[in-house]
Amino acid sequence: PEPLRIAVTPGDGIGPEVVTEAVHCLERLREKHQLPLEWTRFPWPSHAWHEQHGEVMPADALQQLARYDAILLGALGDPGPMDDPDRYLLPDSVSLAPLLEMRKGFDQWVCERPARLLPGARQYLADDRARDIDMLVIRENSEGEYVGQGGRLRQGTEHEVATQMEVFTRRGTESIIRYGFEQARQRAEARRAEGRKREFRSPQCRVSESQVCLITKRNALRYWGDMYTEVFQEVARDYPDVATHHELIDAACMKFVQAPWAFDVVVASNLQGDILTDLAAVLSGGMGVAPSCNLNPDNPDMPSMFEPTHGSAPDIAGQGLADPTAMLFTTARMLDWLGRKEPVLAKAGQELFDAMAADLAENGGTQRDTRTIGDSVLARLG
Amino acid sequence: PEPLRIAVTPGDGIGPEVVTEAVHCLERLREKHQLPLEWTRFPWPSHAWHEQHGEVMPADALQQLARYDAILLGALGDPGPMDDPDRYLLPDSVSLAPLLEMRKGFDQWVCERPARLLPGARQYLADDRARDIDMLVIRENSEGEYVGQGGRLRQGTEHEVATQMEVFTRRGTESIIRYGFEQARQRAEARRAEGRKREFRSPQCRVSESQVCLITKRNALRYWGDMYTEVFQEVARDYPDVATHHELIDAACMKFVQAPWAFDVVVASNLQGDILTDLAAVLSGGMGVAPSCNLNPDNPDMPSMFEPTHGSAPDIAGQGLADPTAMLFTTARMLDWLGRKEPVLAKAGQELFDAMAADLAENGGTQRDTRTIGDSVLARLG
Ligand SMILES: CC(C)[C@H](C(=O)O)[C@@H](O)C(=O)O
Ligand SMILES: CC(C)[C@H](C(=O)O)[C@@H](O)C(=O)O
Repeated sequence: PEPLRIAVTPGDGIGPEVVTEAVHCLERLREKHQLPLEWTRFPWPSHAWHEQHGEVMPADALQQLARYDAILLGALGDPGPMDDPDRYLLPDSVSLAPLLEMRKGFDQWVCERPARLLPGARQYLADDRARDIDMLVIRENSEGEYVGQGGRLRQGTEHEVATQMEVFTRRGTESIIRYGFEQARQRAEARRAEGRKREFRSPQCRVSESQVCLITKRNALRYWGDMYTEVFQEVARDYPDVATHHELIDAACMKFVQAPWAFDVVVASNLQGDILTDLAAVLSGGMGVAPSCNLNPDNPDMPSMFEPTHGSAPDIAGQGLADPTAMLFTTARMLDWLGRKEPVLAKAGQELFDAMAADLAENGGTQRDTRTIGDSVLARLG
Repeated sequence: PEPLRIAVTPGDGIGPEVVTEAVHCLERLREKHQLPLEWTRFPWPSHAWHEQHGEVMPADALQQLARYDAILLGALGDPGPMDDPDRYLLPDSVSLAPLLEMRKGFDQWVCERPARLLPGARQYLADDRARDIDMLVIRENSEGEYVGQGGRLRQGTEHEVATQMEVFTRRGTESIIRYGFEQARQRAEARRAEGRKREFRSPQCRVSESQVCLITKRNALRYWGDMYTEVFQEVARDYPDVATHHELIDAACMKFVQAPWAFDVVVASNLQGDILTDLAAVLSGGMGVAPSCNLNPDNPDMPSMFEPTHGSAPDIAGQGLADPTAMLFTTARMLDWLGRKEPVLAKAGQELFDAMAADLAENGGTQRDTRTIGDSVLARLG
């Protein structure tokens, strides 16, 4: 078959270091299973490209990337210490912009961030039920608080007024909520297949094997809060087998710390999802293990984008110290996604995930450099 | 002296139950020290009032409250299960509205929520450094995401668009940031007096005894994020003794779980502060111990409002099970605040806090009903 094509964009800081390990694993898997897969490495978006060309990526970057089936991104940005702008190389509004441009340009309206505390990962919570954390946070990734509308009136004067507009469409809202319910069903099915079972309760259905929890701040941000709530109730009628729940974002953050094992699928707006997924990342052991999948589920011709949730970590960049685990997990998620086009890739994704998880279970907590972890996972791939 | 006057508004659910214990303590303290203090109990805002009068509070409620030196509020709202609107008595946009009306009406532009893990309080984090958590989250309480502007276009149709406007003024921004720096200085002084010392680092000053961390999401919400950052840098120049730091809201939530003991004073916008204070409440042992102080520091003639961070807890209301600790802590904070007008009240506040903290240290973790906890604290007041 025609090979699927991946655009590899290592980016800045530790990005290239962890991407190198991911590519080694991809090579090994391709060789082993004759995977129909090829990739191209791009020097942009990056600070380095900006230094040479005065922009983080070429003007036709999105057109170039559009020809690929997926984008595998390392990390962007090198903001330096956040409180010392004099040491910025580039403000992060410039160096991170490609992230938001790709999400919007390729209509990656879903951002999926799974959170499970894998054996070997660091446990931050005192309660041992933390071991049962197994949730999927689904973040609306294309509208809401991130539309970038607003401005600064009388900038720099004592009378300045800064505004930021949040814009939510019913279409976007319904899509993300429906996507959440579909995932909840699929997760329940997968659990059933594995002989695991979970129980959730809600007023609509007394006991259910899956749950969707909607997040809003509808007691203060009424307009979209009400719309989200109404659409949620409407869509829920199509999924009588899935329990429903609603939390305000502030209470949700609290419950993520108090009882995260009670959540299954969580659906949130762009900003609230951003916040919850960082929290969820800690719950699953920290940034070192958290993948982020920016998906366009509608259009198979548009590339989805896969990145670890962590940033470019300028403080340890260039030293070979970064943990590539999140990047490998991310790569496994990408292969799984590409499995929609070539089922054999989903299998390879599972293999990579299993290798990475086995390595984490065995060595998690010990101090190892990037190469050592990468090689250890590679060895498990045979 | 002319007594200071407190408007006591018990509200809904567990509100009246915990307020009763607070009032017992106030009575005891008044008697013991001849405190210049009197209070009036109001049956509103509440669901009960709404049932009789068709509104949660009278039209002239704010005028009535304006004559008091402080408002001591129990809890508002009885939304029922969030995902079952049929069981709402009143939507929370109605029953909680008085909170926002008081904050705006009395220009309580500061919301102060201290977070310390007191001995006896539940520790949710695995790391024992959690015992050192000692931060003050300062939330902008009068503008930003909470201005309530926006609407729903083509409501209920598939073409609906919901908008919510965030509006930030430079004046509001500067005030809250300056307030944060002042608090940082005062906290450092207090620590010095107690012989405790903490160390913070930042690029501007190598080592400092206090820190202000500014929270934004300036990489996505640029306009006010930039304004906040600029004002922060400007104001910081007046406080060369205070270390500065900047976190994005998503990273801040993560660090609140990973290393909350590293924070001192945290300044955040209205919504981001709302989120961080719920998280901070968990870090200090949960909603059962978290006070919330809505302050107008400019105008001594306008009442400030003191409420526990917890809600009306309809699930346990009426059973005498609610923990009044947060309410007692809140009352202590109120007395401390009123100490600006009558220093003897600040002393009484300290006494109440000490009694509550001693009770928590001795009995925290044991299951006790509202009355038992209240009586135990009362007994310690002598
Ligand atoms: C870098 C930033 C714009 C981005 C976001 O807020 O979406 C990041 O925090 C993320 O979660 O992917
Ligand atoms: C009830 C609600 C409007 C309120 C807020 O968001 O400010 C509450 O969450 C709080 O923190 O006091």
